[in-house]
Amino acid sequence: MTITRREALVGAAAAAALPLLNSSSAHAAVPPANKQAPSFYRYKVGDIEVAVVSDGANTYPLADKFVLNASKDDVNAALGRAFLPQDKVTIHFAPLAINTGGKLVVIDTGNGRAANAATKGSVGQFAANLMAAGIDPKNVDMVVISHFHGDHVNGLLTTDNQLAFPNAEILVPAVEWKFWMDDGEMSRASAGRMQDLFKNNRRVFEAGLAKKVTPYEWGKDVAPGLLAVETAGHTPGHTSYVLSSGSDRVFIQSDVTNNPDLFVRNPGWHANFDQDGDMAESTRRKVYDMLVVEKLKVQGFHYPFPALGNIEKDGNGYRLVPAPWSPVI
Amino acid sequence: MTITRREALVGAAAAAALPLLNSSSAHAAVPPANKQAPSFYRYKVGDIEVAVVSDGANTYPLADKFVLNASKDDVNAALGRAFLPQDKVTIHFAPLAINTGGKLVVIDTGNGRAANAATKGSVGQFAANLMAAGIDPKNVDMVVISHFHGDHVNGLLTTDNQLAFPNAEILVPAVEWKFWMDDGEMSRASAGRMQDLFKNNRRVFEAGLAKKVTPYEWGKDVAPGLLAVETAGHTPGHTSYVLSSGSDRVFIQSDVTNNPDLFVRNPGWHANFDQDGDMAESTRRKVYDMLVVEKLKVQGFHYPFPALGNIEKDGNGYRLVPAPWSPVI
Repeated sequence: MTITRREALVGAAAAAALPLLNSSSAHAAVPPANKQAPSFYRYKVGDIEVAVVSDGANTYPLADKFVLNASKDDVNAALGRAFLPQDKVTIHFAPLAINTGGKLVVIDTGNGRAANAATKGSVGQFAANLMAAGIDPKNVDMVVISHFHGDHVNGLLTTDNQLAFPNAEILVPAVEWKFWMDDGEMSRASAGRMQDLFKNNRRVFEAGLAKKVTPYEWGKDVAPGLLAVETAGHTPGHTSYVLSSGSDRVFIQSDVTNNPDLFVRNPGWHANFDQDGDMAESTRRKVYDMLVVEKLKVQGFHYPFPALGNIEKDGNGYRLVPAPWSPVI
Repeated sequence: MTITRREALVGAAAAAALPLLNSSSAHAAVPPANKQAPSFYRYKVGDIEVAVVSDGANTYPLADKFVLNASKDDVNAALGRAFLPQDKVTIHFAPLAINTGGKLVVIDTGNGRAANAATKGSVGQFAANLMAAGIDPKNVDMVVISHFHGDHVNGLLTTDNQLAFPNAEILVPAVEWKFWMDDGEMSRASAGRMQDLFKNNRRVFEAGLAKKVTPYEWGKDVAPGLLAVETAGHTPGHTSYVLSSGSDRVFIQSDVTNNPDLFVRNPGWHANFDQDGDMAESTRRKVYDMLVVEKLKVQGFHYPFPALGNIEKDGNGYRLVPAPWSPVI
């Protein structure tokens, strides 16, 4: 087998067998679609129906300090092992819409419509993909927020600062709420990213939203079948979930890791957006050891869509084994 | 972190911070969708637009002789390592619709509409997913067939034996055409599966189709940018392709392997549907060594949708690394 370019289709056997059709088509050439399929995917956890509804993905130049304790060369090597291009990093965003039978529950809201305009559609796709999935934001009963970073909370508001889910109760981790709404914490936050995060959270949660916000506690069901689990480190109140129905369950890891080709493979790497790198690493190792031992399916906000898989041990780290796409539910 | 079930959301902090909203929703509970997203996915190879359009997937009990030279226990072990259920095998089907700019080219046609009815929608989804992707079968200029097994050719016809792609030229491997249309070969075929295959191919290609069939040769472009490559073994005329545009290329492996968790990981395993197991294995090892050395993207008809990835060496075998889903094209 050699793969070289040859000339047009005029083989001896072809000519001998049947005449080569050269009839030009009756129709004009069909233009390319230039548009991706709507990126949503459904699966069942027992009686519960989960829809993974992509908010898109964004590609950034690889910053020198994207991983605080690994060199750019090491990050490029990991990208290469995963057959990804060098010197850039793609961050994926996968919010969820969960139908528990009685309640329609959104977990995290993506980057929002303003980001959609700013990125020319790369991110902030959540609203459009929800619509493609036939989910009306007005029918959402609860929005559960895992933590207060912009890619999780900004989709709570429309571009004109209205509630994107007007009839939904907004449920937020109690520890997270306390941290970001504390004026003392805000005054002590370092300039730049942390100050900006405080300002963004005040903007989002003060835009007519605070009266609808309910803090929730770890170790309790925040919605039917949805257990909130403490996984602090990435932020002080960062929360994961176990969604269960009957004997079926999935672990919703939120941001315990970001891009799996980097941070599942290298659990000791500290991403620059982990607010407490050491605690985040400790949490990550505990969670991933548990996922391996329990062979528990895992849904990751920053895994590539549809962001569902299992975890295997791999050397000193782990590896995401994506679940095969099921064309039926 | 412990994952145990607890009671309802009535935490001390929640009660202290803000009143827990218990308002029942104004709307009735939204019913579950019970329907998967349309399974199509687009990507570019240079200027060429590829749409992977799923025909679905079918799950069968694991037969004792599904792999001729491996025990059922070994197959179950491989399924377990891939986090797949025991004692059953899922076969995925991923035809392609390729827009070369001038021509709309379908590669392989899936199990057909009759299979769709027989499996209650599990397979034979190609026609419906093409429609979801906005592709009108009447606009297809060419249908390129990789080999003459039912899951590749049956979709050429509608349930009432009409041409599913009425304006398309049908291009078939010259060696494959010669084998299946040879009455001597048919008379020597063993009873059961091989006889049935001959009969099915006569049925499909005699139903008003033969006059539109053009055999093609290996080593030549069968459509713009689409080079036909000999990969015999699975069938005598089994064909793969290199699709290329500019410096970008992808290897379309057809059935060089079936389910990657079994046959990419274990290239020495002979599936019961490989017509010449030894030749199929030899082809498989050559192709996969080439894919590793050239770091060439590969599209697999029987990989889980969207069936695109890269190949890495893994012990004595290989491993498919699925390409991350891009929410934009």
